[in-house]
Amino acid sequence: MALREDALLLHERNKGKLAVVSKVQVENERDLSLAYSPGVAEPCREIHRDVSKAYVYTGKGNAVAVVSNGTAVLGLGNIGAAAALPVMEGKAVLFKAFADIDAYPICLDTQDPEEVIRTVKLLANQFGGVNLEDIAAPMCFEIEDRLKRETNIPIFHDDQHGTAIVTLAGLINALKFVDKKMSDVRIVVNGAGAAGIATVNLLRSVGAKNIIICDSKGALYEDRDVVMTGVKRIMAENTNRDKVKGALDDVIAGADVFIGVSVAGALTSEMVHRMNSKPIIFAMANPDPEILPDTAKAAGVAVIGTGRSDFPNQVNNVLAFPGIFRGALDVHAYAITENMKLAAANAIASLVADEELNADYVIPKPFDPRVVPAVAAAVAQAAREDNVIRDGELELQR
Amino acid sequence: MALREDALLLHERNKGKLAVVSKVQVENERDLSLAYSPGVAEPCREIHRDVSKAYVYTGKGNAVAVVSNGTAVLGLGNIGAAAALPVMEGKAVLFKAFADIDAYPICLDTQDPEEVIRTVKLLANQFGGVNLEDIAAPMCFEIEDRLKRETNIPIFHDDQHGTAIVTLAGLINALKFVDKKMSDVRIVVNGAGAAGIATVNLLRSVGAKNIIICDSKGALYEDRDVVMTGVKRIMAENTNRDKVKGALDDVIAGADVFIGVSVAGALTSEMVHRMNSKPIIFAMANPDPEILPDTAKAAGVAVIGTGRSDFPNQVNNVLAFPGIFRGALDVHAYAITENMKLAAANAIASLVADEELNADYVIPKPFDPRVVPAVAAAVAQAAREDNVIRDGELELQR
Repeated sequence: MALREDALLLHERNKGKLAVVSKVQVENERDLSLAYSPGVAEPCREIHRDVSKAYVYTGKGNAVAVVSNGTAVLGLGNIGAAAALPVMEGKAVLFKAFADIDAYPICLDTQDPEEVIRTVKLLANQFGGVNLEDIAAPMCFEIEDRLKRETNIPIFHDDQHGTAIVTLAGLINALKFVDKKMSDVRIVVNGAGAAGIATVNLLRSVGAKNIIICDSKGALYEDRDVVMTGVKRIMAENTNRDKVKGALDDVIAGADVFIGVSVAGALTSEMVHRMNSKPIIFAMANPDPEILPDTAKAAGVAVIGTGRSDFPNQVNNVLAFPGIFRGALDVHAYAITENMKLAAANAIASLVADEELNADYVIPKPFDPRVVPAVAAAVAQAAREDNVIRDGELELQR
Repeated sequence: MALREDALLLHERNKGKLAVVSKVQVENERDLSLAYSPGVAEPCREIHRDVSKAYVYTGKGNAVAVVSNGTAVLGLGNIGAAAALPVMEGKAVLFKAFADIDAYPICLDTQDPEEVIRTVKLLANQFGGVNLEDIAAPMCFEIEDRLKRETNIPIFHDDQHGTAIVTLAGLINALKFVDKKMSDVRIVVNGAGAAGIATVNLLRSVGAKNIIICDSKGALYEDRDVVMTGVKRIMAENTNRDKVKGALDDVIAGADVFIGVSVAGALTSEMVHRMNSKPIIFAMANPDPEILPDTAKAAGVAVIGTGRSDFPNQVNNVLAFPGIFRGALDVHAYAITENMKLAAANAIASLVADEELNADYVIPKPFDPRVVPAVAAAVAQAAREDNVIRDGELELQR
C-alpha cells in the first residue's frame, strides 16, 4: 500500500521530522556576547537565585518532554527506545503543529521503570511538563504515579488519559443524542490495559455507576479466581457492582455502551443485537476496530466511533493533549488534575452544537481549529479553580 | 553595564533561545497518517530490524546532546542544572548558527558522575553525538572516558578539547611567526583544570616536549609532596622533565610560551620580562585575562591571545566545536580521535595565510565563514583515515 512507501519516503527525505532552531540571531560579536558568554551569565545568576525564573529566561515554560522507553509502541509492542524515536518525533510534530509547544523526544533505553522515573526527575528542571508515551502497562501506572508525586510539573500519560478524555467527550454527546444518562447506562469496557483503565476511572468520576471491564479472560469482578494484577484487582473492586461473570459474549447482553480498547473483530454483529436499545459503540482497536461501522449500523447501533480517520467520529488523542498541555503551560500548572481532564472532555464535547449533533458527528474533527483554544482555555480555568498554578501566574502569563 | 540588561532582556523577550520545529507539514488527515499513526509504524519497524536505520529515518544523524550537570558553569561555579540551562540553550544556538546542527540541551540535576553517565547511555540512541559542557573536574574526566568506552557515538567535552584545539591552532601560527619549533619551546601552562590538562595532552601529541604545568600550589612534578589528584599525578609524570619546582613566578623564567587557563592577573609584566625572547602568551582567564594585551606588549611579548572578543587573537571555542561535530556527523563517526582534534587545529591554523600572519592575527575570527567548512572537512577526512566511521557512510552521507 502507498502509505507504507510514502511514510518511509517522508521520513527518509527529511531525515526525521524535527529541527531545533534558534529564536535569537547570532550574526556578530555583540549577538554572541548576549546569547552566550559573557552575557548568558546573567540569566544563569537569576535562575540560581530563584529557580522559578527559568520560566522567564529559558524555554522551560513552553517545553514538554515526550518520554518513552519503547515498551508499547503503537501496536508494535516492545520494540525498544531506538525504534520508538519516529513516534516521539511525530508526537513532537503534533505538539508544534496543534499547540505551538516545543516538544523534545526523550527515548530511554531501559525496561526498568525506576530508571525512567529517575531520568525524568533529573531532567524535570528544563521542562514545563512531561508527556509519557507508549510505555507498557502496568509499569506506566507506577511511572506516572511516582512522577506526579516526585516532580513539580504536570505529568500526563497520553495513552491513558488522552484516549479516556476523547472517549468521554464522544460519550457525552452520544448519550445526549440517544437521550440516556451517564448514571443510568450499563457500560462494557473491553480491554483492561492502560487506556481501558484510565477510561473507566474518568467515566466513574463523571457519575457512571454500572461499568463492567473485560480482559481476555472475561469480566473483572471482585475475587475472580483468574489471577489479576494489582491494578486489575483494584478496578474489579470498583466496577461490576453486580459481580457479573463470564466472557464479553455473556456480559454484553443488555449493555447500553461498548468501549473497545482491545483487538480487531472482538465485537460481533450478533453481540450488538443483544445490547440494549440504541446502543453506543466506541471501537478503538487500531488499525482495525472491534467492529466495522457498517456492520455495527446494520446491527442497529445508534452511534459508533472508531480510531480511524476514514470513518465518522474519530477518537483521536490530538483532540486532547495539545490543548491540555497548552492550557497547563499557559498558567504554569504544576499538575494535571481530574478536573482539568474533565474540563478538556467537556470542552471537546461542547464544540458539537446541539443542532449539529447526529449519529455521525458526536466528536469534532481533529483539524477543527476551535479545538485547541477551547481545550486550553477550559484546562487553564480548571487549573485555577483547583489552585494548581504557580504564584505570579498573571505576571508570567503567555 | 548595558550587557547585563541587554542579556536579560534578550532572554526574557524570547523566553529562552530555542524552539523545536517540524520539518514536515501536518495540515490534513493524510499528513497526519504519514508523520504519525499509522504511517510512522513503518520507520519504527525498519529501525527495529536494523538500528543503524535511525540515521536514515530520524534526526539522530544531525542531533547532538549538550549535556551538563551545572557543576562548573562559566565562571559561576556549581550553580546546578536549572541555572545552567541558559548556557546549554546558548550552546545549542551556536551549534545551529554555525553548523546547522540540531542540539538538545540536557541539564541533569545530579552531582553524581555515575548518574550523568547512566543517563547519557540511556539517551544515546537518539543522538549522533554528545557535547559535554560545564562539568567540573575531575568528574568530567571520568564521565568523558567512560562514555567514550560505553557508547558508540562521539563524546566531546568542549571545555577541555575545544579550548585545547583552538589554543593549539593559535600556537602553531604564533610559533611560525616567531620562528620557533614546537619540539624546542618551553611551555608553561598555568591552571591544571579540565582545559589546562586537555591542552597539555594535545600539545604533547604534536611533539611539545618541555611543558611545565602549574596549579595554585606551583609546578607539578613527579613525587611533589603537595597532594595531587589522580589526573594531576599522571600529568606530573608526563610533563616537567627536569622536575622544576616552585611557583609560577619561579618557573616562568626562560619560558617561550605561557598558556593561562587560571585567574585574572596571574601573569605580571615582571614575569614576562624574565621569559625567553619573543615570548608567546595565551591568557584565557575569563572575563579578565591573566595579563592584559597592552601590558604584555609593553613587556615585550611577541604574540598574545585571550578569550576576549575585544582583543586580537580570540581563543573562542566556536572555532572548533561546530566544525568538529559537523565533520563527525557527516561521516557518522562513532568517536572523536586525537587525529580528528589535530586535524581541526591544523585546519583552523591554516586559514591564516602566511602573508596575513602577524602578531595580531594568529587565529581566525569566530565569524570567518571559512572556518566551519574547513574544520568539518578536515575532521571528516581524519575520521576516515582513523576508520572510526560506520559502514554505509557514503550511501548515508549528508
